[in-house]
Amino acid sequence: MADSIGTGSEEASASLEEREEAERQGLVVVKPEPFNAETPTQALALGRTPTPVFYVRSNHAEPELSPDTHRISVEGAVEDAFMLEVAELSQQKRRSLTVTLECAGNGRTSMAPLPEGEPWGQGALGTAIWTGVPLAEVLSRARLRKEAVEVLIEGADGKGSKRFARALPLSKALHPDTLLALEMNGAPLTRAHGAPVRLVVPGWYGMASVKWVSRIEALTRPFEGYYQRDRYIYDTADGRKPEPVTRMRVKSLITSPEEGARLTEGPVVVQGMAWSGERRVVQVEVAVDGGDNWKSATLLEVPRPSAWVRWAFTWENPKPGRHTLRARATDEAGETQPESAQWNRLGYGNNAVQVRVVYVG
Amino acid sequence: MADSIGTGSEEASASLEEREEAERQGLVVVKPEPFNAETPTQALALGRTPTPVFYVRSNHAEPELSPDTHRISVEGAVEDAFMLEVAELSQQKRRSLTVTLECAGNGRTSMAPLPEGEPWGQGALGTAIWTGVPLAEVLSRARLRKEAVEVLIEGADGKGSKRFARALPLSKALHPDTLLALEMNGAPLTRAHGAPVRLVVPGWYGMASVKWVSRIEALTRPFEGYYQRDRYIYDTADGRKPEPVTRMRVKSLITSPEEGARLTEGPVVVQGMAWSGERRVVQVEVAVDGGDNWKSATLLEVPRPSAWVRWAFTWENPKPGRHTLRARATDEAGETQPESAQWNRLGYGNNAVQVRVVYVG
Repeated sequence: MADSIGTGSEEASASLEEREEAERQGLVVVKPEPFNAETPTQALALGRTPTPVFYVRSNHAEPELSPDTHRISVEGAVEDAFMLEVAELSQQKRRSLTVTLECAGNGRTSMAPLPEGEPWGQGALGTAIWTGVPLAEVLSRARLRKEAVEVLIEGADGKGSKRFARALPLSKALHPDTLLALEMNGAPLTRAHGAPVRLVVPGWYGMASVKWVSRIEALTRPFEGYYQRDRYIYDTADGRKPEPVTRMRVKSLITSPEEGARLTEGPVVVQGMAWSGERRVVQVEVAVDGGDNWKSATLLEVPRPSAWVRWAFTWENPKPGRHTLRARATDEAGETQPESAQWNRLGYGNNAVQVRVVYVG
Repeated sequence: MADSIGTGSEEASASLEEREEAERQGLVVVKPEPFNAETPTQALALGRTPTPVFYVRSNHAEPELSPDTHRISVEGAVEDAFMLEVAELSQQKRRSLTVTLECAGNGRTSMAPLPEGEPWGQGALGTAIWTGVPLAEVLSRARLRKEAVEVLIEGADGKGSKRFARALPLSKALHPDTLLALEMNGAPLTRAHGAPVRLVVPGWYGMASVKWVSRIEALTRPFEGYYQRDRYIYDTADGRKPEPVTRMRVKSLITSPEEGARLTEGPVVVQGMAWSGERRVVQVEVAVDGGDNWKSATLLEVPRPSAWVRWAFTWENPKPGRHTLRARATDEAGETQPESAQWNRLGYGNNAVQVRVVYVG
């Protein structure tokens, strides 16, 4: 709602304070305006990512919305359109879910040819506990008409045709895990993360989890907006029709040892995370040199389809010198990480095996 | 010659001292035994690479050869076989050439899938002044027979079928720039660099520049040795016949700013090197973001076909945030660097455009 957005000057000053705080906390700034920053490497080693160091991806300046006055318009192909107050949403029965979010552009700088777009390394990634009300509850109250085919979620960020908005198919919009989240890691959402209400779409790349939700519209035709049809598509530039970017591809990350680490001899524990959107990870393998000598790592917790799983591998007899460590995850559908990135013009969905260089002795 | 190689224990102790000195000087050790190490990044910014930080690539333990007693057997399809003493070679008319040497495996760790083999980053590269006698002079004295098709150069390193040996076509063996080098950067060769005599083959990847030369044999049939037919070949593993690795592919390197550098705002001078084996570099372009926006850099010296050329580019208005810098060289034959590595099973010849990540503000 236009009337719930702060003035430009308010936006700028609040954003600056929050940004300075973020940098103090260790976020790695990729772009100061609009503010975009990565989770620092050390924080990725934690099972849950603390909010102050959780990556921030915004396409526009961060709107400042008051939880007391902000309202969400629920409209379109519904029987009962209504204005949803944040206070009202807060009183409904809530769910808490641990969800891994990864930016679709994460790993873009490892793609060749290097695509245009924010130069994300591998830190546009984090896992938090999100608490909120299923979007399905709100849609249930509005009563979707049978003509509805998608549900559009619009943020309060951006203007005109560049207003940030994304549509979900009904199956995902009505899934009980798709939340209108009010809290992150047990505290009200911060402005950078979409306060007072954001969508959280488990299993999908982050663009689906619209921040600063201001409008929910049931659509009778597929959405054709900029962030649905011109961005967040796998455009392979070879004449094939681009596929939309949806679920997170199976991927893993080595969190320890760090890049360039100098290790003493003796067994080295290689640790990391692995995830696959909407699917459980079933195997992680590690190779301690180039080539095809993959060995199974141990999963340290029961894999869930919405959050990363931690894993560990004991490297028994590292010889002195430089070594390359690689990890490769496989999910319950049998999908595994490719060894090289699947290039696309906009640089999305890079889930290729990464190479970590370390030194022993 | 087997009788000119030191005993095992002499080898080990001398090698250890030299290695410790090398590490003190800043070489980046890739493998301690046999000793393999990269030129440190800072040293690559120098027009000429100081000997103590010049990369070392050895396939076997370093032989210890006395310049007083070491002799090179010149034999095979020649009219006058003879034993060449180092002292004798030293008295001949010498030439000095500035030559860039790059290991064929340089950049292997940036290839995907990651090939087996020494995990070289981008520092298996250096430029030195080499002083010696053209191989052609020695071959002239021996008088090649007309049946000769190649000239084999054998090192004193390795044993049996793994003895390091490489053959050159006659055109390259007889080229006046192909030197039996006695000096590097104005001083006698160090042991790590092939003392007392090594071959220097300008324009070719480093494997051709055989160290510790012990035998020169004119061959009447193409050489089939391990390091000629089983290694140093572009094996694309797709059924095509492997091509031999020969001249260095066109390539460039950004030496400043360094990876991860935090720059203040204002114009930034991007600098580096570019080279192409046996050819002059004619253009270097720089892109300061992903995509295809390449702009010409300035070559800082007259390009030569055997050594890198330094270049600079002024980045006028860097905006705050993370940026990706890329450089791309083109040579006089119109060859330019590919944006992604041309994968091959053994990981040779990676001349792909590299991505350097820096921060502004």
